[in-house]
Amino acid sequence: MIEQEKLSKEQIQYEFERLQDSICMALEEADGLGKFKEDKWQRAGGGGGKTRIIQGKIIEKGGVNFSAVHGQLPVKTGEALKFPKDSWFFATGVSIVLHPHNPHIPIIHLNVRYFEVKPNQNDIAPEWWFGGGIDLTPHYVVEEEARDFHRQLKEACDLHDPNHYPKFKKWADDYFYLPHREETRGVGGIFFDRLSGGEKLNHFEFVKSLGNAFSPIYTKLMKNNSEKPFSEKEKDWQLHRRGRYVEFNLVWDKGTKFGLDTNGRTESILMSLPSIAKWTYNYEIENNSPEEKTLALLKKGIDWVN
Amino acid sequence: MIEQEKLSKEQIQYEFERLQDSICMALEEADGLGKFKEDKWQRAGGGGGKTRIIQGKIIEKGGVNFSAVHGQLPVKTGEALKFPKDSWFFATGVSIVLHPHNPHIPIIHLNVRYFEVKPNQNDIAPEWWFGGGIDLTPHYVVEEEARDFHRQLKEACDLHDPNHYPKFKKWADDYFYLPHREETRGVGGIFFDRLSGGEKLNHFEFVKSLGNAFSPIYTKLMKNNSEKPFSEKEKDWQLHRRGRYVEFNLVWDKGTKFGLDTNGRTESILMSLPSIAKWTYNYEIENNSPEEKTLALLKKGIDWVN
Repeated sequence: MIEQEKLSKEQIQYEFERLQDSICMALEEADGLGKFKEDKWQRAGGGGGKTRIIQGKIIEKGGVNFSAVHGQLPVKTGEALKFPKDSWFFATGVSIVLHPHNPHIPIIHLNVRYFEVKPNQNDIAPEWWFGGGIDLTPHYVVEEEARDFHRQLKEACDLHDPNHYPKFKKWADDYFYLPHREETRGVGGIFFDRLSGGEKLNHFEFVKSLGNAFSPIYTKLMKNNSEKPFSEKEKDWQLHRRGRYVEFNLVWDKGTKFGLDTNGRTESILMSLPSIAKWTYNYEIENNSPEEKTLALLKKGIDWVN
Repeated sequence: MIEQEKLSKEQIQYEFERLQDSICMALEEADGLGKFKEDKWQRAGGGGGKTRIIQGKIIEKGGVNFSAVHGQLPVKTGEALKFPKDSWFFATGVSIVLHPHNPHIPIIHLNVRYFEVKPNQNDIAPEWWFGGGIDLTPHYVVEEEARDFHRQLKEACDLHDPNHYPKFKKWADDYFYLPHREETRGVGGIFFDRLSGGEKLNHFEFVKSLGNAFSPIYTKLMKNNSEKPFSEKEKDWQLHRRGRYVEFNLVWDKGTKFGLDTNGRTESILMSLPSIAKWTYNYEIENNSPEEKTLALLKKGIDWVN
């Protein structure tokens, strides 16, 4: 057990690296064929990361990224976070996006991150906070799976704070939303930022619970659905849903924007994009089709746990 | 000949509608198979447009949009243009993006627009300006075609003002640029905004010259290249270049952002996206390949006319 006073940024970074390792191992085993390839990279302003990409039998394209960067706070980030421009920062996190071959397996995304900022160089103690989220984007919404997903997130949250799930579930509904399509990205999940105050260790334990929930959640979805047959039409629909995923990530996602604005490593940031995606003008959907049923469930405010 | 005093917004709108008609006719004839389908749409705040989409033998997916909208200036537009929030506006324009099947035919884009704003309701004369641009995005840069393209743009510019081409060519280099890739979108072209002052008619004649240059430029590229054979590798490269096109339009293009921010008609705005696009992590390019040669030419500041 790490004592609170001793929970350093190095320890958090170390545990995020282990989280990357354990998730990569679990995904390789569940995929059965694909192996992660790693690119280590350095950031000019300080720090670096390890980008790991898998192209497997079940996962068509997936990225599990770890990074730990520090230095002078980039100007645009400072503006967004409302810190003076000469601030020093440290940020470490794990980011995952997985695009499966089979349209009956959902796309999944996880991010956990820890941030420190010292507005003045002479500050001894930095401001610190955690952020993150996990959300599920089924090409076809299976209500039982969505409920199962949310129940597991609620369990991970409730271990630490009973207010987390309802608050962070709503936050995810609002965050993972495409205003120009009036659609949520998928069935949501949880999202939080600037999680701070009180004991840092408690927050870290929550973030770790979330990270540790990832592998069981997703490998089960892989196992249950990877053998399901699918039609050309279902594949086509998947590629169009991926088009929406691209739209969200490039137009609305703050993490992507932050990365591209601050001269991050483009290939690591855009690992979230699918291998292949489609757009059709006024794509038509049949009445009472599974596609129409899915669209009807891409709404904010659905209660998946009761 | 329209006299300057009589050049009303209705006349400009009328001529933009005729430009849409003439370009659609020329493209249908050059395609030989595809026919434009039209969707008329109304804007809640005032005005509307005609979106025309073609899926043809040579053009895989193309849109030629006309719109004429007016009303209260959307808040975000007002901020961007630095007008007070109760301003009245009128905007009309034609927007085109064409994605061909054959990777040896470039993607092309044109936009011409006319804007009026009255900062105060009691203003009799509005502020007005023209904007627009045309740029070419070859999947494989053919230098002779790039030179030919720029020469034709320079000719259209020089008829009106010898300063236009050098100024607007540089502007296009800067505008059609992906900072996160350190690449221009293609071989550039011209781009201009807030073109105003002096006789409105002169500016309009310039904008019309640009619009009228479009069909001969592109139908020639279609005719010369549509029968060229291409390999699977060339097709794959094309889909990856389209990925970059998607990145530019969704991350950097101000017109797309403006449209999505101001609750524009999403299907009309995103007609610029290709039918299908690809992303591969760290896509590898062979030394001395045509792909490498193309990337080397996606740079700012290339002088294509001398």
